[in-house]
Amino acid sequence: MKIAVFGTGIVGQVIANRLSGLGHTVCVGTRDVAKALARTDKDVYGNQPFGKWYEQNVNTVSLGTYAEAAASSEIIFNCTMGQGSIEALKQAGGSNLKGKVIIDISNPLDFSKGMPPFLSPGNTDSLGELIQRTFPDVKVVKTLNTMNCYLMVNPAALPGDHTVFVSGNDGGAKATAKEILKSFGWKESNMIDLGDISTARGTEQLLPIWIRLYGALQTAMFNFSIVIGKSPM
Amino acid sequence: MKIAVFGTGIVGQVIANRLSGLGHTVCVGTRDVAKALARTDKDVYGNQPFGKWYEQNVNTVSLGTYAEAAASSEIIFNCTMGQGSIEALKQAGGSNLKGKVIIDISNPLDFSKGMPPFLSPGNTDSLGELIQRTFPDVKVVKTLNTMNCYLMVNPAALPGDHTVFVSGNDGGAKATAKEILKSFGWKESNMIDLGDISTARGTEQLLPIWIRLYGALQTAMFNFSIVIGKSPM
Repeated sequence: MKIAVFGTGIVGQVIANRLSGLGHTVCVGTRDVAKALARTDKDVYGNQPFGKWYEQNVNTVSLGTYAEAAASSEIIFNCTMGQGSIEALKQAGGSNLKGKVIIDISNPLDFSKGMPPFLSPGNTDSLGELIQRTFPDVKVVKTLNTMNCYLMVNPAALPGDHTVFVSGNDGGAKATAKEILKSFGWKESNMIDLGDISTARGTEQLLPIWIRLYGALQTAMFNFSIVIGKSPM
Repeated sequence: MKIAVFGTGIVGQVIANRLSGLGHTVCVGTRDVAKALARTDKDVYGNQPFGKWYEQNVNTVSLGTYAEAAASSEIIFNCTMGQGSIEALKQAGGSNLKGKVIIDISNPLDFSKGMPPFLSPGNTDSLGELIQRTFPDVKVVKTLNTMNCYLMVNPAALPGDHTVFVSGNDGGAKATAKEILKSFGWKESNMIDLGDISTARGTEQLLPIWIRLYGALQTAMFNFSIVIGKSPM
């Protein structure tokens, strides 16, 4: 499929590599192509700068503005920072988004008041819902936002069963997202469809404990697993 | 030990039964003893009314006002509805609480705007922190609030490993809470100490997805498990 990956950070890089490795035609979307290529600073986690990554992947992945990436794609992976997602999608342009599936894997973490971050929007709203409300013509599927990006594309990196959640209003769009999850290595039995896009409030609210677990466990290689009993209570 | 259990709902009943079965001296605390005993209505989940439960447990559990229960106890289990917790603790009286461990297993779910409930306080605060701030002389430990009450006291009801979180500022109080968890059947390897009481924001924010999982799975017999990788990412 033709897939746009919005965002040039480590999450966008890992998702773009995985999708192109699976044979998809991938275009990374960014605000300013020249600026993205000129970026030579490592990110806060010490990951290589986008320019260097793109140099290594120029034969398998293309690069464009949000509008160019969206225009050439059937599906959009939103891997931007949550605080910038709405602006990125606005720059893509409504006509380039219309009718498309947006797989939203971002989280609306607000670090403006220091650590720990809070969710904005949060509690009575979610980024998934906000995107769906702002762009009613798209089909938002919230998924993968509850784990680090290496696990997203390679669930076998953890032993045994663990869970990926799926939220969205459109059954067909969720089926498309689940096919992509399967191609990443996710077993159908480890996918939990929570319901409509308002259930994204639930998965986005996993981030505060994710951050605290990252601190307590001193590793990002962990995930939530839902253990279910055999009999009713 | 002498333990007060605040709250006469199903959570308080199950906790009180388990603690008294383990040999502790248990006093259930409530706002109005006569009113609690007169309650003949089943709760929303169809559980038996408090008066009937107490009739069956009168030989092993005592009953008193919040103040009476707190005065006679070394440890207080807060099993009240989150929206009423501060008022219940105020009724207990500061001098009856001073220096004691409060094991807070409640959640600040606000149903005033219908379903789904939201958290109040939430996002930038938590009930655990609010209790600790309001009563600086007590030692709040937030734990067990992320699962149904039958699992709290009997983790073996689910197969394999699953997780209980612990948050609190006082190391000694957390050690006391962990001893009680162990007596309930929790393996130390399944307890995750998240850090200070501000990490209660993390566990309280698991409730929104808990409620959606309850809807999607059609059972309350499930729990979160944190699956941890063997190597760093």
